Amino acid sequence: MRNLTLNVDLKGRDYPIIIGADLLGSAHLVKPYLGSGRAVIVTNEAVAALYLERFEANLREAGIDAFSISLPDGERYKTWETLNSIFDAMLAQRCDRATTVIALGGGVVGDMAGFAAATYQRGVSYIQVPTTLLAQVDSSVGGKTAINHPLGKNMIGAFYQPRLVLSDLSTLSTLPRRELSAGLAEVVKYGAIMDAEFFAWLEENMQKLMARDLDALGYAVERSCKCKADVVADDEREAGRRAILNFGHTFGHAIEAGLGFGNWLHGEAVSAGMVLAASMSARQGEISDSDVARLARVLKQAGLPVQAPSLGAQRYLDLMGYDKKVQDGKLRLVLLRSIGDAYLTADFSAAGLEQVLTDIPDDG
Amino acid sequence: MRNLTLNVDLKGRDYPIIIGADLLGSAHLVKPYLGSGRAVIVTNEAVAALYLERFEANLREAGIDAFSISLPDGERYKTWETLNSIFDAMLAQRCDRATTVIALGGGVVGDMAGFAAATYQRGVSYIQVPTTLLAQVDSSVGGKTAINHPLGKNMIGAFYQPRLVLSDLSTLSTLPRRELSAGLAEVVKYGAIMDAEFFAWLEENMQKLMARDLDALGYAVERSCKCKADVVADDEREAGRRAILNFGHTFGHAIEAGLGFGNWLHGEAVSAGMVLAASMSARQGEISDSDVARLARVLKQAGLPVQAPSLGAQRYLDLMGYDKKVQDGKLRLVLLRSIGDAYLTADFSAAGLEQVLTDIPDDG
Repeated sequence: MRNLTLNVDLKGRDYPIIIGADLLGSAHLVKPYLGSGRAVIVTNEAVAALYLERFEANLREAGIDAFSISLPDGERYKTWETLNSIFDAMLAQRCDRATTVIALGGGVVGDMAGFAAATYQRGVSYIQVPTTLLAQVDSSVGGKTAINHPLGKNMIGAFYQPRLVLSDLSTLSTLPRRELSAGLAEVVKYGAIMDAEFFAWLEENMQKLMARDLDALGYAVERSCKCKADVVADDEREAGRRAILNFGHTFGHAIEAGLGFGNWLHGEAVSAGMVLAASMSARQGEISDSDVARLARVLKQAGLPVQAPSLGAQRYLDLMGYDKKVQDGKLRLVLLRSIGDAYLTADFSAAGLEQVLTDIPDDG
Repeated sequence: MRNLTLNVDLKGRDYPIIIGADLLGSAHLVKPYLGSGRAVIVTNEAVAALYLERFEANLREAGIDAFSISLPDGERYKTWETLNSIFDAMLAQRCDRATTVIALGGGVVGDMAGFAAATYQRGVSYIQVPTTLLAQVDSSVGGKTAINHPLGKNMIGAFYQPRLVLSDLSTLSTLPRRELSAGLAEVVKYGAIMDAEFFAWLEENMQKLMARDLDALGYAVERSCKCKADVVADDEREAGRRAILNFGHTFGHAIEAGLGFGNWLHGEAVSAGMVLAASMSARQGEISDSDVARLARVLKQAGLPVQAPSLGAQRYLDLMGYDKKVQDGKLRLVLLRSIGDAYLTADFSAAGLEQVLTDIPDDG
């Protein structure tokens, strides 16, 4: 396939996303975005085993002065301690402000490498090389970086834009099936919240995506990034419209927290969360029951859970109260006006919400 | 005295600096800058003992929902652990994104509170209430926030602008004499690097400043902030002209590091460092020996050391090599073309620099 290039247009700080096959072997694509300084590849042990040697060698062949830092693998290492190990290595290597941090990996690596780039000597250049579908369609646009705090996920972080995103679709060939599905949850989300035509395309092409057809993946990644870029350009600091990207996430976070983080993947929780949000929208009289069924059907085809776990309605409400979207003590939800049109509101029936949560059947 | 208001004009994110007497009792000045959320006052134990109760009570009387966090006092606490204690308290109090962080204290408090505001939930509003002269003339403009790392000062941080700076000159009445002098080092710096007229005013009025005359202090704080704002507006991310603000600082950092951080105050090291930088400028044929003497004289009147400690030339050079201004392995210095006109250059005589450092007399 030919490379696709999408320009994310944020005032004064636009950057390209290049989507294609075998991009890890294309150091010439990276080189124009490096300054005169060194490149630090931040990755994790699992990704390193698959791709680091080749990527690093390729950069060096292109005359780039690169070294690498390999983090332990997993969300539970998204901590200050791990972040600090990046700083330790960069300081030991005497990295100056002309250094570029390159994140090679999924969302956890990207979040930490990005936050390290945002804060090392008050900010150095940053390039993302996402190797999971979730990172390619979610983390590549929006500039969110963060670490976790014992009292909450992503509580400490920064908005920080990369200079370049290189989405190598070939890396998706080694992605576990469950993680492919988790990425597709976010892809379906873009269709549901803002792009009815894309949603219909996904209903037609979900099998190709599950079979990792490169052209289908390329199209889905590009269109997802376009959707997200469109929202983020409107609202970089998450004051308003950007909130629709959290469709399914308030419920999803409650599911993740209620089951204990790490039991369900984020995308799995968002999938079941989107079905709850859609049910709530139907109860508000906005969408039809058949729209809810369409959403559940395409998520199922993507191998995702569409049935939320039975935590009890009160427990859900408590867990949703911790969400960052709470403002002035009032819970806000992202609901659907139709497939392809979402909005943020605090104006919904509290009794209706409780009923939707009560209606969740026992896991049995 | 009447309050002075200076607008710092950074594209899209301008904010006012209000300078006056007894501003801690003027919560109405703060109120318009708070959102609907809570106010978290971050301070330290020493400042808390003097000013917290009154300030907090005053905010509460004005209907502001405020609570406070008191940090241990001193640069050695400018660490991740202390920063994290701010996050712990904010999370325990369930602070959301509508929260405003108010820094009440000197530079260390401001650096940490500012970095906490920059990164708590990826950024909340920030107000500075600097209670030292150094913080009033240096930290109130430029948006620099940071913590230290065992391998270097201010290595981890962010550029983050406050919504408002409230410089209460009355708080300078309790400032230890040595810290007043340290603040004056930066005041003299502004004159030396970019404002010959202000430099001449300082030569005339240093005694009034040392006597803490409110009108003289107000004028010096306002003019210093204007100078810094002028440079920062040109160059927010420190790519070029902003570097002149580091006049004396490359030498100063070497002095601080060589003596062990905390032995000399930062402003004291900068004072002796500026004299070294001026001597280097004279050696380059840029300024006259009498200009060097003028600078040393006004610094002496401000109660500052003008004689650098004898660490040995090689030790100085090593320590200067660690500086963030090193680019591509090449040391850059801020030198003077004349009193009131500084520039950054890598084009200087290395032998000349070594000679200036060798000429430092033994401490005896």
